[in-house]
Amino acid sequence: MIKNDLILRAAKGEKVERTPVWLMRQAGRILPEYRAVRAKMGGFKELVETPEFACEVTLQPVDILGVDAAIIFSDILVVPEAMGLPYTIVEAQGPRFEKTIQSQKDIDSLQIAKVDDLHYVMDALQLTKQALNGRVPLIGFCGAPWTLFAYMIEGSGSKTFSKAKKFLYANPQAAHNLLEKITQSSINYLKGQVKAGADMLQVFDSWAGVLSPEQYNEFSLKYISKICNEVNEVPLTVFAKDAFFARKNLGLLNCNTIGLDWTMDISESRSLIGNSKTLQGNMDPCLLYADNDVIKKETIKMLRAFGPQRHIANLGHGLYPDTEKDKVKFFVDTIKEFRF
Amino acid sequence: MIKNDLILRAAKGEKVERTPVWLMRQAGRILPEYRAVRAKMGGFKELVETPEFACEVTLQPVDILGVDAAIIFSDILVVPEAMGLPYTIVEAQGPRFEKTIQSQKDIDSLQIAKVDDLHYVMDALQLTKQALNGRVPLIGFCGAPWTLFAYMIEGSGSKTFSKAKKFLYANPQAAHNLLEKITQSSINYLKGQVKAGADMLQVFDSWAGVLSPEQYNEFSLKYISKICNEVNEVPLTVFAKDAFFARKNLGLLNCNTIGLDWTMDISESRSLIGNSKTLQGNMDPCLLYADNDVIKKETIKMLRAFGPQRHIANLGHGLYPDTEKDKVKFFVDTIKEFRF
Repeated sequence: MIKNDLILRAAKGEKVERTPVWLMRQAGRILPEYRAVRAKMGGFKELVETPEFACEVTLQPVDILGVDAAIIFSDILVVPEAMGLPYTIVEAQGPRFEKTIQSQKDIDSLQIAKVDDLHYVMDALQLTKQALNGRVPLIGFCGAPWTLFAYMIEGSGSKTFSKAKKFLYANPQAAHNLLEKITQSSINYLKGQVKAGADMLQVFDSWAGVLSPEQYNEFSLKYISKICNEVNEVPLTVFAKDAFFARKNLGLLNCNTIGLDWTMDISESRSLIGNSKTLQGNMDPCLLYADNDVIKKETIKMLRAFGPQRHIANLGHGLYPDTEKDKVKFFVDTIKEFRF
Repeated sequence: MIKNDLILRAAKGEKVERTPVWLMRQAGRILPEYRAVRAKMGGFKELVETPEFACEVTLQPVDILGVDAAIIFSDILVVPEAMGLPYTIVEAQGPRFEKTIQSQKDIDSLQIAKVDDLHYVMDALQLTKQALNGRVPLIGFCGAPWTLFAYMIEGSGSKTFSKAKKFLYANPQAAHNLLEKITQSSINYLKGQVKAGADMLQVFDSWAGVLSPEQYNEFSLKYISKICNEVNEVPLTVFAKDAFFARKNLGLLNCNTIGLDWTMDISESRSLIGNSKTLQGNMDPCLLYADNDVIKKETIKMLRAFGPQRHIANLGHGLYPDTEKDKVKFFVDTIKEFRF
């Protein structure tokens, strides 16, 4: 059914002829073609909520950059919104929730999100799946429960997420209640995405790195693990940014792939995570500011360090918005042309 | 000369009767007494630049919290300013440089800072040293060259410091030239601080964690190492926030103490860093939002994990501004009362 299924095979540990590649935040952001679509819309959220446009933007990097997978253009905060916490995106600042969660009563007022509450994402997935017509797999995603929790308490981004962490220390039981509600919502959401056409899933734990190893086990990994155990229709990737301390435990999850950021040594990560997982990553996004010689040299060094199998090439975080499209294409081409 | 020299003995690996404690950002911030002094001044920078007030604020945590060392109230960005890059502090936002460094020409226009360029810090140290009258040691400090470099290129704080990292990839030789100038300035500055009365020094590498392990070795550790080799009049601590990947190499530095943040497992860090260094840290600052029972339990667990010798108790980062003074005092008292 899918012509280029390299990423799916790599995720399952099957043999691949070359290392597949996709990029986090590839769906737009750095592409002039994306900015053109965006300019037609009121803003980021309108784009996310309009299936035709989300589909168009999702396809762009497949057409323009030649990556080996599409990732649906969406946002991790659609889940808190579907649970009852609306948000807006403030230009150049990021998300803002008008209400935040401060008590068990606030938690009680939230619903567990169901697929119907996120029908616009399902519509976007279906449209994209049709439009892709089997060229490459389509990736669906959600935020990890801890990361969504952090935004729901804090109300916005934060350097320290100290309000969210305060909640963990001050109200551990209420924290678990909220995390459980987010987890159930995320399971519904991911299962819906698979039904709507997602061939692969990724869970993003963007704020993993602000927790201590013990808190991470208790308040994050436990819930990611529930998701992994419940959602096993398609290969699933867990990317816990900055959670270097959790690599051994991430290796025990019931999922296919673990994402690494660029601070994590590749061979050390492989030995911590074990051989039963595919690894994804992990180039520093800033490498794409260098000249092509440096990009090529560092990219090939990364490919060799991961080895020819059980690796999905990617950056160690999302593309930065001021990266030049030609450099991104050169990075993708370097990976696609390389043979061991 | 110094009545309570626990911290100095711990740093040198000499036997101590109990674990000493001080806190990063203890000099004010969370104390109402600090806010009262601050309210009299125009702002943070005026406080830093007025030796009498800097001295007063430096003494407050010794008097009020009973910590085992004073740390001079100052700012890491006084060094870039003394090199020729003035800055302001924008309330609730952080530092802003009006000019930034973008080229070798900009680097050539900077001077190597000398002690006289930072006389107000020296005056503050001398005043404080007199006022302390040997009660506890006085700690001086500077930012690590990479961290200062990051601000000088970026012009402000940043989540990714992608402009500063772009400079490393795009202009590695110019980057080294700037880092060398900052390093020479920092050596002058630290030596001046010792002459003015500092009994101990700390180098803060606040933005260590945005670099890859290889870049960290090349663009940060190399220069910290130069500082450690040149400045050896008093015990020196290196705190590289988030540089989990560098712990083995940090253990090879010619310094006494390595600071840990709360994401770093204590026994793993000890085995990576080796037994020839004192370790400092590493409680999550958010623990101080918990109730006293939890604070006590977690603090004693931390003390036991580090063991009775070669440990200086501290948080794993600076105090957060909304922490209650009573909780901070309880944390300090718990450490001071504990015996193995």
